[in-house]
Amino acid sequence: MLHPNKILDFILNSSYETILDQIDDIHPVDFLEALSEFENDPIQVLEKLPDEYIGLLLDYAEDDEKFALLSHFSETRKGQLISEMSSDELVDLLGGLDLEDQNAILDNMNIEDANEVKGLLAYDPETAGGIMATEFIAIKESFTINETIEYLRSMAPTSETPYYIYVINDFDVLKGVVPLREIVISEPTTLIKDIMIEKIISIPVDLDQEEVALMFDKYSFMAVPVVDHEGVILGIVTVDDVMEIMKDEYTEDMFRLAGLDETEKIDGSVKGAIKSRLPWLLVNLITAILAAATVSLFENTIAQIVALATFMPIVAGMGGNAGTQTLTLIIRGIALGELTYENQKEILRKEILIGLINGLCLGVIVALLGYFWVGTAAFGFVIGLAMFLNLIVATFSGYYVPVILKKVGIDPALASAVFVTTVTDVLGFFFFLGLATIMINFLI
Amino acid sequence: MLHPNKILDFILNSSYETILDQIDDIHPVDFLEALSEFENDPIQVLEKLPDEYIGLLLDYAEDDEKFALLSHFSETRKGQLISEMSSDELVDLLGGLDLEDQNAILDNMNIEDANEVKGLLAYDPETAGGIMATEFIAIKESFTINETIEYLRSMAPTSETPYYIYVINDFDVLKGVVPLREIVISEPTTLIKDIMIEKIISIPVDLDQEEVALMFDKYSFMAVPVVDHEGVILGIVTVDDVMEIMKDEYTEDMFRLAGLDETEKIDGSVKGAIKSRLPWLLVNLITAILAAATVSLFENTIAQIVALATFMPIVAGMGGNAGTQTLTLIIRGIALGELTYENQKEILRKEILIGLINGLCLGVIVALLGYFWVGTAAFGFVIGLAMFLNLIVATFSGYYVPVILKKVGIDPALASAVFVTTVTDVLGFFFFLGLATIMINFLI
Repeated sequence: MLHPNKILDFILNSSYETILDQIDDIHPVDFLEALSEFENDPIQVLEKLPDEYIGLLLDYAEDDEKFALLSHFSETRKGQLISEMSSDELVDLLGGLDLEDQNAILDNMNIEDANEVKGLLAYDPETAGGIMATEFIAIKESFTINETIEYLRSMAPTSETPYYIYVINDFDVLKGVVPLREIVISEPTTLIKDIMIEKIISIPVDLDQEEVALMFDKYSFMAVPVVDHEGVILGIVTVDDVMEIMKDEYTEDMFRLAGLDETEKIDGSVKGAIKSRLPWLLVNLITAILAAATVSLFENTIAQIVALATFMPIVAGMGGNAGTQTLTLIIRGIALGELTYENQKEILRKEILIGLINGLCLGVIVALLGYFWVGTAAFGFVIGLAMFLNLIVATFSGYYVPVILKKVGIDPALASAVFVTTVTDVLGFFFFLGLATIMINFLI
Repeated sequence: MLHPNKILDFILNSSYETILDQIDDIHPVDFLEALSEFENDPIQVLEKLPDEYIGLLLDYAEDDEKFALLSHFSETRKGQLISEMSSDELVDLLGGLDLEDQNAILDNMNIEDANEVKGLLAYDPETAGGIMATEFIAIKESFTINETIEYLRSMAPTSETPYYIYVINDFDVLKGVVPLREIVISEPTTLIKDIMIEKIISIPVDLDQEEVALMFDKYSFMAVPVVDHEGVILGIVTVDDVMEIMKDEYTEDMFRLAGLDETEKIDGSVKGAIKSRLPWLLVNLITAILAAATVSLFENTIAQIVALATFMPIVAGMGGNAGTQTLTLIIRGIALGELTYENQKEILRKEILIGLINGLCLGVIVALLGYFWVGTAAFGFVIGLAMFLNLIVATFSGYYVPVILKKVGIDPALASAVFVTTVTDVLGFFFFLGLATIMINFLI
């Protein structure tokens, strides 16, 4: 691996022949890293590279890097370079453009490539069709090993070509798969249909990408063929695409739980960050006002026993913490497909039991704390019972809020936290201050 | 793909020859699923399977399923079956046993396999050495394509064999890699050293698994060779192992942020859940008591202006929310390697600016709210200023808490949330009630 600083020096000071010969030893990701630190006009370097390598750079670049790279070239050259990209990356790139810019690029590609790309653009980008690539190799069942090898030579497979050879019948219907290693070690006259693995697992073209990721996770696939409703093979999804999806979905869940927009970048702009965070803080402000309004109902009681104000944050805060625990477990369970129709009752029962036990433990502890701090058994009883009740509420809302949001089609990660803390704040204050109001004569 | 219900019927009612012929069409994951729903003694089914397939089942099973599967066999059989497993899965399995049980199994393996496994067990399980498999294929630079194919045939590669052929010199030092497709399409007399890719990216055996996952993410690898400090190839890490790591690390971050133990399962036991959650709730209770103690310093002030109790949850809660936003962004940035030495000052500056702007917006809003609700401009001023100050504190602690924890070697996800909310609660109450105490004459 060449040191990043050496990469551009090598390109700038070598002949086209030397570059062509040695460029395969430079990983595109390393090249992009070197290029991002280059202080002169990148076109000096780019114009010395073979088209195929620029295609690889475009494949590996992040979306905004792709645009930046392309911007150095004329419209005609853009079309040529883009034809070197793998189809799934190209579709991602074009999908981010408006129709006019899309067409400007498509017009400069050859008609066959352009039509293929247009077909791919028609799929929902968050389904198997939207993420699949069309660089797969399919052969007929009747081929021999020798014919297969000849066919592979004629295709001149690039580094993007996967390691499975799919087997189809005369109507392009997927019939099986042959791992490349079988091609290598089998006798030249062996028939493909005798060594292929039948009953291959495939995914329908309209399957949601989260489901696709769950299947990869379950079966540890490297690549999976995508088929239409007649079983005709349309493309493949590879594990590197799925890793991206998994990473994005993780970040999305985690960010949404914390009230961040999933597109916010750690090194993004201040303006973007404010737009991501302030609306969420305002939503939370409304729920905080609801909690405050609950407290205000009991101002008379607080005026008589000011210690109530001291203990308020304990009841509400602990409810929020316990609710978040249940909530996080349920949201993760939904995301991983572990919460099913079969086990949901069992899990709710378990969570309630946990809420009862944790509520009992914490209730007793804060009851003792209240008793020793304030000095009356009644105060201990009030704070202990309020804590116990709020922990049960926390468990219920931690379970039901994400489950119901999921059922009505809202991402549980997006809105659950605010609902759960509103419930635990409002009811926590209500239990605590309400009980104190009822028992006011024992507290003074 | 056979329907799950049909899988076990097929095994129970077929001859060994038929099973041997067709078992490859049943994905081990589907088989395990069917087996988990089987109501009779699983040994009826297991004893009809070839050893190699049981090895695959053990490879694909979750850790506790692996133990359950093995428990059906005698010690001697265990050793045989385990020899069929891929080395990385086997090491995971044995790593979970105590020394005595480990040795009982190792004693029943053949000496060569057992020694290899012992070598692997010596690596830290959270490093490249701990996750690598030894099922890689390495050939000499001087081989021709024909010799390579002969060698591959003699190895009889299983489905576990990867798609890259590594090239080594006479001292086992890694010199390059040849994709399997090049073997297929090259002329039989071509020399390996003429088609191999040199300057291949490899990872050192002691690299932390999180770093390994970041490299896979960066370069979109399918598999990477692991080398010792002399460059001798020791094993390979494949993308499916890395996906597991990513999933586990992510669940760990998310769970730890919410105060759950990363090993808690949605369908786990109540006892396990209490052990996971109660200690965390107790830690939070201590921080809640700190917040309560802060409030208690100002009981005299609250007794004079009870509306302060009503507004308390707003100041503290909003600080907590804003702190969590910054915190989550920073923790994810640390996990993804996006927070670097170079950009950290810039990011802190950005976060402070965001805190100032969000603090100003929310400060003005709650100042107006306080003014209209309570009726005095002074009250609006106190709550507005407290809110502004607490949002700046939230930003600082959201940034510094995870960064400092990381620096002292504590997982930021584990302890950051509790630190940040303690700071925003305590200081939020302190600013709000302290300002009110200073300005008491304007508030009454």
